[in-house]
Amino acid sequence: MADKSLNKSADLDETTWGHRWGYRDTRFVVNPDGSVKVTGDRYAVSGYDMPGFIPFLEETLNIKLDLADIKPERADKPVPDPLVNAAFVAALAAALPADRTSDDPRERLLHSHGQTTVDEIYQVLYTHLNRVVDLVVWPQTHDEAAALVRLAAEHDVCLVPYGGGTSVSAALKLPADETRMIVSVDMRRMDAIEWIDRENMRACVQAGITGSHLEARLAEQGLTCGHEPDSVELSTLGGWIATNASGMKKNRYGNIEDIVENVTMVTPAGVIEHLVNMPRVSMGVEPRHLAFGSEGNLGLITRAVIRIHELPEVKEYGSYVFRDFETGTAFLYDLSRAGALPASIRLVDNVQFRFGQALKARPTGQEKLMSRVQQTVLESIKGFDLRKMSAATVVMEGSAAEVEYQKGEIKRIAAQHGGISGGAHNGQRGYMLTYAIAYIRDFLTDYHIIGETYETTVPWSKIHEVIAAVEKRSTEMHREFGLPGKSYVSPRITQLYHTGVCIYFTHGFSARGVENPDRVFAAIEHAMRETIMAHGGSISHHHGVGKLRRDFIGQTLTPAAIDVLRDMKTAADPANVFGIANNVFAMEEG
Amino acid sequence: MADKSLNKSADLDETTWGHRWGYRDTRFVVNPDGSVKVTGDRYAVSGYDMPGFIPFLEETLNIKLDLADIKPERADKPVPDPLVNAAFVAALAAALPADRTSDDPRERLLHSHGQTTVDEIYQVLYTHLNRVVDLVVWPQTHDEAAALVRLAAEHDVCLVPYGGGTSVSAALKLPADETRMIVSVDMRRMDAIEWIDRENMRACVQAGITGSHLEARLAEQGLTCGHEPDSVELSTLGGWIATNASGMKKNRYGNIEDIVENVTMVTPAGVIEHLVNMPRVSMGVEPRHLAFGSEGNLGLITRAVIRIHELPEVKEYGSYVFRDFETGTAFLYDLSRAGALPASIRLVDNVQFRFGQALKARPTGQEKLMSRVQQTVLESIKGFDLRKMSAATVVMEGSAAEVEYQKGEIKRIAAQHGGISGGAHNGQRGYMLTYAIAYIRDFLTDYHIIGETYETTVPWSKIHEVIAAVEKRSTEMHREFGLPGKSYVSPRITQLYHTGVCIYFTHGFSARGVENPDRVFAAIEHAMRETIMAHGGSISHHHGVGKLRRDFIGQTLTPAAIDVLRDMKTAADPANVFGIANNVFAMEEG
Repeated sequence: MADKSLNKSADLDETTWGHRWGYRDTRFVVNPDGSVKVTGDRYAVSGYDMPGFIPFLEETLNIKLDLADIKPERADKPVPDPLVNAAFVAALAAALPADRTSDDPRERLLHSHGQTTVDEIYQVLYTHLNRVVDLVVWPQTHDEAAALVRLAAEHDVCLVPYGGGTSVSAALKLPADETRMIVSVDMRRMDAIEWIDRENMRACVQAGITGSHLEARLAEQGLTCGHEPDSVELSTLGGWIATNASGMKKNRYGNIEDIVENVTMVTPAGVIEHLVNMPRVSMGVEPRHLAFGSEGNLGLITRAVIRIHELPEVKEYGSYVFRDFETGTAFLYDLSRAGALPASIRLVDNVQFRFGQALKARPTGQEKLMSRVQQTVLESIKGFDLRKMSAATVVMEGSAAEVEYQKGEIKRIAAQHGGISGGAHNGQRGYMLTYAIAYIRDFLTDYHIIGETYETTVPWSKIHEVIAAVEKRSTEMHREFGLPGKSYVSPRITQLYHTGVCIYFTHGFSARGVENPDRVFAAIEHAMRETIMAHGGSISHHHGVGKLRRDFIGQTLTPAAIDVLRDMKTAADPANVFGIANNVFAMEEG
Repeated sequence: MADKSLNKSADLDETTWGHRWGYRDTRFVVNPDGSVKVTGDRYAVSGYDMPGFIPFLEETLNIKLDLADIKPERADKPVPDPLVNAAFVAALAAALPADRTSDDPRERLLHSHGQTTVDEIYQVLYTHLNRVVDLVVWPQTHDEAAALVRLAAEHDVCLVPYGGGTSVSAALKLPADETRMIVSVDMRRMDAIEWIDRENMRACVQAGITGSHLEARLAEQGLTCGHEPDSVELSTLGGWIATNASGMKKNRYGNIEDIVENVTMVTPAGVIEHLVNMPRVSMGVEPRHLAFGSEGNLGLITRAVIRIHELPEVKEYGSYVFRDFETGTAFLYDLSRAGALPASIRLVDNVQFRFGQALKARPTGQEKLMSRVQQTVLESIKGFDLRKMSAATVVMEGSAAEVEYQKGEIKRIAAQHGGISGGAHNGQRGYMLTYAIAYIRDFLTDYHIIGETYETTVPWSKIHEVIAAVEKRSTEMHREFGLPGKSYVSPRITQLYHTGVCIYFTHGFSARGVENPDRVFAAIEHAMRETIMAHGGSISHHHGVGKLRRDFIGQTLTPAAIDVLRDMKTAADPANVFGIANNVFAMEEG
């Protein structure tokens, strides 16, 4: 398989599916022989047959898939008539060129949800959305964005910032009781790199740029930002800031708050920004922190100054397999303490490890032989149980010396834990799978399988407790709800920190024949968050709170802290122009 | 010289000077032969004669020091009668044990200033303070601190948080027009480590702990926090948070915002804190950012959860000399890009390099010979000019492998810039000098030399422009004011970032015979900040804004950002209990 890097995306058809995840050229389809294929050639997993996919699913979920029983998507997706604030529309028409706005029902519907399975995707595909935006506006400059905010405040209109539409926290879900005209502000035409300062290694970038475009344009100059959240192809710089995004390569490039030096946010009270771009300042309380995690509540993020880097001299992948997940975790702990973290290192549990195997092509004779040899070595010589093993994928970037040093340390510490190298190819494949895997939710939805991902931060000491509790509680609830087969619950550790990690769960089950499967899933997901937090996990590592996790804010912040956040909002947006009501502003509805 | 580490401070007399900087056992004194000595045995420079000190001063300032002409310190330091809010005092007496409070005039005076030369030290030593606190309170628990805040709000009393008293931004300067009773809240009895979580490597520490005590107690457990601002011996955890402190070893341990996971701040509106300690969370806008840079305006910081580390396996020092400051800077730039930064690396200009030489003991015959040999090598063979050379000091910490790797990279990159190793001993000496140098200001003050340090952040591309502009403007102003001799203006680069550095200036001159030398210095310092900012520097890297730099806030933040900060204060502290009026709350007085 060739290395299909993100930077090639400019050559591909970038039409997106619309309501479902990702690009239209890519979907999982079942071949007549029961194998599965990914259409197009965008990803490493595209274009070949995967005979193991369906058998893996059936075994893991303990069901028999009926490939003829497709969950019927609603063809006539109803869109109510727009609520029109005529004075605002007239003023907007006078202020902005006509091609900046649309009241086309399809555009309005597309801009009325994110990618949260239950709260958004299930509703738009199978039932209907309770509220749809009344107009879509695409500002093309900071001044157009500022004019839009001013007019909205003048005319009592509600604005909803829209980036890549990849939210999975129901942050784009519109408040059902919003009686004002709602305008979706699609920032994606504001995608210019305004300047690059090569000596100081920073760039000023408009906030509507997607990760793939940002990386492609920087790469033309031999540069990278290095921020790679799972959604990087579609999500935007502004969205990253508004949700506190985390990138897979944060060990080298930082999380979004480490990458962004300055943010320009247009609020009804005016523009909040620092007037000087600086690596680090002691200037009192820093207003730029209001943008991080603002989740659409405070204003439009129009641009940011970000740190950039030369493309690394060397980029190498690696992988290691370990006896089990606990051993893999112990390896991560020691590696973290040794101070030799590569750009990215992630650990998947045995279920995901086997899922990765199930996504492989039918092996050739030679490959079959090698695979049998490998298996024999692992099982007979090393005593590994193929149904317990875990696998770590590694991405190293930097100078030749840096990468060499990291590689040596990883090898040394992996050996201390009995880890066996799985090679660079498997490492690269594991890393790249992330992008393709996101499409699987929509594929499985067709076959009545409902699923979602959710993440948390936990201290090192709580990793196994949280995972065990989630597995136990999900099994119990599966039984309580009398669901078919069993649940797929699989954790991976995606980010390492000095004091803990991010655990990323994938959770799904067959809901065939289940009444209101979305409500059942919502109840289970809510219970999982309860369980996670009861055992020491956080409300979110990088998805954000949105509306999905509003019930848990009281467990994360003191009442006085919540009050101050609300007062801050009143200061920046007294008339609640940004009325999307996420996070602490979602609490009243709870 | 022995390695007198910070961790030995527990054995020393920790009585401080009071109004002047530092510990009473340490001061610079002139011997009868004109050499200078540091009393006591606290520092590497303590206890031996420095024949080069006075000659260096005289040459650099172009003056002749009259050692008999001592600037007269006021012996009768006037302290006005306290302004007493009787109801508050009675309520406080009922709530807290008697040993928690003092209205002793000396204690009140000691708690009424920080260490800013002009605004504070000159006034307390030579004239008088316009306003003195009316009571000092030492809370011993979080609950006592909370009770104090509650009573202050009830009785309309002004509270001023007090940590190590090392502020150099006039942040502790009391508003002259404050008509309420002012209570200094000395946090230093709240110095317990409440718990240590060794597996997750974090600790909950009361905010009044000084850096030296924190490190000493952690070291007993084989641990370190690693935060080493220049003031670490005296300054407190709470003070670090309130001023956005930066430590010399931030490349390894982070700046204060990287170290602190959670802050507990008692405001009149209630306790602001996160209820869960996490390495990283996406929970919306994070209220803990209100504590960083709060500069006494918002509440009492009572405790924090900080990241801790095992004491490093290896700690090594190093030093390199370069042809000139520009070459040294180029070396830092390349090292930064190579991703091999040691815990600390700092570059001093030629003036400070020579000052370091002037602080050495009289050489023995053997040392003299070696010194001549070194000089010959540098001058004749390498072509270095001893009056242009710059020097970098290096501190490496970590595993043996990490330190070895860093050492190799530093050596390789230094060689590319013609750098010559000055050895580990000079590196350690240079690093440790920082602590002793702080005492020199008070020594020189006695001889009519007035001086201060100030710092800024600059992008890499602006380093030399800012330094040249400061040197030019200071020379011009020296001439304009008709000051004796010439100014000592010397920069060092103390912190490296991806996009820029911190420059730390030392600035002084002889003010003998000058009328109102403090006002002259204030005017010059103000002009220097103007110059720094006009050429691309920041308002502050780590000293903070306080009152000293209030005139420059308008150049750092948009009006809307300033408004939001003010509204936030109103939310957390509606009656302005925390009325110290720093940062944006100092602006009205400007």
